Order: sequence, then C-alpha cells, then structure tokens
Amino acid sequence: MTQPPSIAGDWRAAAKLITRIESGDASVAAELKALYINGRRPAVVGITGPPGAGKSTLVDHLISHYRARGERVAVLAIDPSSPFTGGAILGDRVRMSRHNTDSGVFIRSMAARGRLGGLSGATGDAITVLAATGAEHLLVETVGVGQSEVEILRHAHTVLIVQTPAGGDSVQAVKAGLLEVGDVFAVNKADIAGADRTVNALLESVEFRYGRHGAEVWRPPVLKTQASEGAGISELIAAIDAHRRHFEAYPDQLATKLRSQARALLIERLAEALRARYARADGSQQRFEFWLEELVARRTDPFTAVANLLDAGPVRGEVAHGR
Amino acid sequence: MTQPPSIAGDWRAAAKLITRIESGDASVAAELKALYINGRRPAVVGITGPPGAGKSTLVDHLISHYRARGERVAVLAIDPSSPFTGGAILGDRVRMSRHNTDSGVFIRSMAARGRLGGLSGATGDAITVLAATGAEHLLVETVGVGQSEVEILRHAHTVLIVQTPAGGDSVQAVKAGLLEVGDVFAVNKADIAGADRTVNALLESVEFRYGRHGAEVWRPPVLKTQASEGAGISELIAAIDAHRRHFEAYPDQLATKLRSQARALLIERLAEALRARYARADGSQQRFEFWLEELVARRTDPFTAVANLLDAGPVRGEVAHGR
Repeated sequence: MTQPPSIAGDWRAAAKLITRIESGDASVAAELKALYINGRRPAVVGITGPPGAGKSTLVDHLISHYRARGERVAVLAIDPSSPFTGGAILGDRVRMSRHNTDSGVFIRSMAARGRLGGLSGATGDAITVLAATGAEHLLVETVGVGQSEVEILRHAHTVLIVQTPAGGDSVQAVKAGLLEVGDVFAVNKADIAGADRTVNALLESVEFRYGRHGAEVWRPPVLKTQASEGAGISELIAAIDAHRRHFEAYPDQLATKLRSQARALLIERLAEALRARYARADGSQQRFEFWLEELVARRTDPFTAVANLLDAGPVRGEVAHGR
Repeated sequence: MTQPPSIAGDWRAAAKLITRIESGDASVAAELKALYINGRRPAVVGITGPPGAGKSTLVDHLISHYRARGERVAVLAIDPSSPFTGGAILGDRVRMSRHNTDSGVFIRSMAARGRLGGLSGATGDAITVLAATGAEHLLVETVGVGQSEVEILRHAHTVLIVQTPAGGDSVQAVKAGLLEVGDVFAVNKADIAGADRTVNALLESVEFRYGRHGAEVWRPPVLKTQASEGAGISELIAAIDAHRRHFEAYPDQLATKLRSQARALLIERLAEALRARYARADGSQQRFEFWLEELVARRTDPFTAVANLLDAGPVRGEVAHGR
C-alpha cells in the first residue's frame, strides 16, 4: 500500500477532491480509500432546519467562536432538495463570506449530482476529505427535506435542529423523525410571536421521549436563539460542548452510535451501488435481466424476483417460484 | 398453484388489501403474487404537481368524465412527503367526496408507513390490487416532492404534470426531472397573472427537448386549465386520450417504456429488500457484519466493503483489500 497523499492543512487539495466527488469521478475512490483508512474522525456537528430558519447565521456564529479559540473549521453545506439539477445552496456561501478571507476556515457547498454512493455517500466522502485536512471542527449543514436530511445527519456526532416559532395552531413542534436524531434544539428568531409555545412544545416532546431516563441518557436541551442579534449563541455553543463531553463520559454510547450510523450508511452505499450496477440495460447482469424479463412477462411477481435476486445461485435452472 | 382470490368489482376487498400493504403486513405478499401474475394492467394516469396546484380538482373532473362514459375509476393518492409519520393526504379524499357515494368510484389515500418494498413498491402493490378490481381507469395522484415523486410516477403510462403560473422572475417552468417524465402539462389556475408566460416557458422546454423529432415521438401538449371553473378540462381529457392512442399506434414504444419502468422499479424493490435485511443488527448476516466491523475499525474503506458485499463469496478468507 502506497502512502496516502497528505492533504493536512491544504484546503485547496480538499476542494479539488470534493469537486471530483461531487461530479461523480470514480477515480477519486483510490484517494478516498487511503484517506479513510489512515484518517482520523473529528467530531462532526450536523445542522438542519427548514429554509429560512437562520441555519447559516448560526453556523456563522459557531465559526467565529471556534476561530476565537484558534481552531480551524470546515463547513460542508449540502442541499438534498435538487436531486436532478444538483442546485447547491450558494446563498449560504455568500452569507458566510465574512469568513472567506480567513485561512482557518473552509466553506464548501456540495450538490453531489453524479454522485458516488448517493448523496449520503458523497457527504461521507467529503467528510473523509475534510477530516484529512486536520480541521478541528466539521460542520455539516443541510436544508430540511424529508429522508435525505436524516441520512446526511447520520454522519454527525452532534445534531443541531434549528426551528422557527411555529405559526398558526400547529401542534407539531418538530418534523417527525427529527426529534429522534436531534441532540440540541434551537428555536431561532425567538422575537417572533409563538416562540415560547414552540419551545414548550419541544420541551414536552423531549420530556416524553427522554424523561424516564437518568443522567446517563443525554437529554437534548431546547434553546431560544436570535442569531441575527447574537442572542443565545453562547448557550448554544455550551450545549454542543456539553453533548461532546457526554460522549467522553460515556464512550460506549458513542461507539454504539457510530456503529449504528455506520450500519445505516453502509446499507445506503450498497443500495446505491446496486442501483448503479443494474441500471445499465446492457444485459451484462444475467441474473437481473432474467428476473426482469420474467416480471415484465408476468411469469413471476416482484416478491419472487426480489427473493431470488437477493439469494445467490446460478441463473441456469432457475424457476419462477411464483407460478 | 391455487386459484387467486377474485376481487373483481370488490372495492371493499381492495381497501382491505391496501390497508395491509400500507401497514407493512408481510402476509399480504401471497395474495399480491397471485393478483400480479394473473392480473391485467390497465392504463395508469399519474398526476403530480406542487401542493395547492389544483390536482384534486382536476382528478375530480377526470372522474366525472369517465363516469359519464359508464367506466369505473380507482384513485390512489400518495403522499411521499411524510416518510416517518406516513401522513396521508386526507384533504384530497374530502375534496373528491362528491364521488364518494358513487359505487363506480374508489378513492383511497395511502401513506405506506411500514411499507413493503418502499413507497414505490407499496404504490405498485396497490396498483396491482386496483387493477384486479377491473376498474377501467387508475389515477395515481402524488404531491410533488423530489425523488419519491418521480419513482411513484414510474408506475404511470401517462404522466400529467400540473403547474400553476410561476410568480416572480422564475425562469424554470417545471421542476428539473419532471420535464423528462411529463406526457401532458397543465398550467392550472390560468386566471392568475403569469399563466401565459409559464405556458410559453413550458412550450419552449418541450420544443427544445422534442422539437427535432417526427410524429413518431410524442410531443407533450401544454394546456391552460382553470379546474375550479371547469375550463380546459375537455382539452385535457383529449390530450390524455391522445397519449393513450399514441401508444396504441406505437406499441413498441409502450413496451420499451414498460420495460424501462419495470427495471427501475425492480432495482428500488431490491434496494429496499436489502435495507430490510441488513438493518437487523442481530448478526445473522455474517458477510455484512464482517465488513461493517472492518469499516468501523477503519481496517477497510466504504468502497472496498461495498465491492466485496456486492460480489458473492465466502466470508472465511476474506481480506480487506483496501489495506
């Protein structure tokens, strides 16, 4: 095995690698393999919330805070809402631009259009790259849209969910599925009417989910922030630090979380690899083509085709059990 | 092979089967297999568009039209936007309720929470059920959210994309990815300012994509409708009929489309089955668990793990090639 290319401290090399990941350049895998195996894994903070919730402004504050400590920060902004065009959230780059001239900060949006291993896989690969730069902090920001968001957040040790005060008579304080992955909740734009009600609804949800547990189970704090004014930021940073210390106190919990995340991420990569393999209509995948024809001719059914394709065995002599 | 249960003309039996599909009851597979293999496949019209575009009102008109011809209609409304709670679009049921007392109409929303074969697989299974009722028309309505929408539309022979006049200076007339799957475009709420501009932008997109082809290639018509007033409906129905006749004139094109759809749908079912299989952390999938451990310990990388898992072979003697 050759020595991996060192990209420590080299934002420019990182940017080039991420561009290759984003464009689906398969040749980048060789470098990624080496960076992954030889790499460290810094704590990753994932940030999500609906568009306009103020995520980028909060990220901006986090950057300033870590920079004041002299630590380097890499930010990856992922937009899973445009699977076809891969429209990146360029606006965020602009908003965070006051850090653009700071050599201790790297900000990158990623669209992952022709992606290796799906959007989640591409995110993981970009994190591998950013980790290799040696940055002390990795922030992954993603806009809140359905399942993709949750998959991207599987890369984070600490997940910050940003909400805005709910208007109307909405009873749901946080989108289903996010309560389970959130480690810290921030109700931003706390000057808007309804902020307290949203905070209370979130507190109730957290209490319902975590209330019966003791101190060994992390109970996600719910904070009010007003990012545009800088209000509540120090409490937010303290909460993120506290979550990190919780894992230091309970390393088994971190190991369990990482293994569970790795499982889900590996399954997604497999699913994506399977898609890429069978999408070719060139007949090179005999078993698949055989069952596809059986299905189209209605000589078998989808359940039987799937069961046979997932179990190994020769094509010759196969029968459609569904008949 | 036993004779499949006949559910011809039996909406109640269809509803029960769909409830079992929706709740992820694996035992329903036996009935679905029989219905699939022995079943017919009626033409399916897929309808999509953003929330509030007036899809349900258009569907309502389509139902009335087909009922006036004495044909039975089954409507399946899928909401892919709530993968966790599986929130069904109940509002649509209510809006279409004037057909609720008509025994020739079956309207069903589906959430597919604990789904077999993913949302797309569950949609396909529900279509298998509805086809077995013998309804002449199947309408599948889905709200427009990202990739899920396109996967659901893979079940349709004819895809109707409903748009509303674009506000502001939006240049994109139709969401990326939808131009490719749309067979008929309707700009609804045509009384709103900007309708002509949206129609023209769509026409330009269609021209750009299909303009160089002859009559053997279907060129999606772009229509203005005002569903609330019933305006443009007869033209819309004529366009859907014309698309059906196009496939009658070019049966090879229909066969190609169906095979291409079946390929994509089978891949999605495989990916979902793989997810279900490996999500169990009980160690029963030796190969998977082996590579997961290698990955977590960073003795291998995601690319090597995926490559080894997709290729058959024994666990014993496996090595992590990435080292």
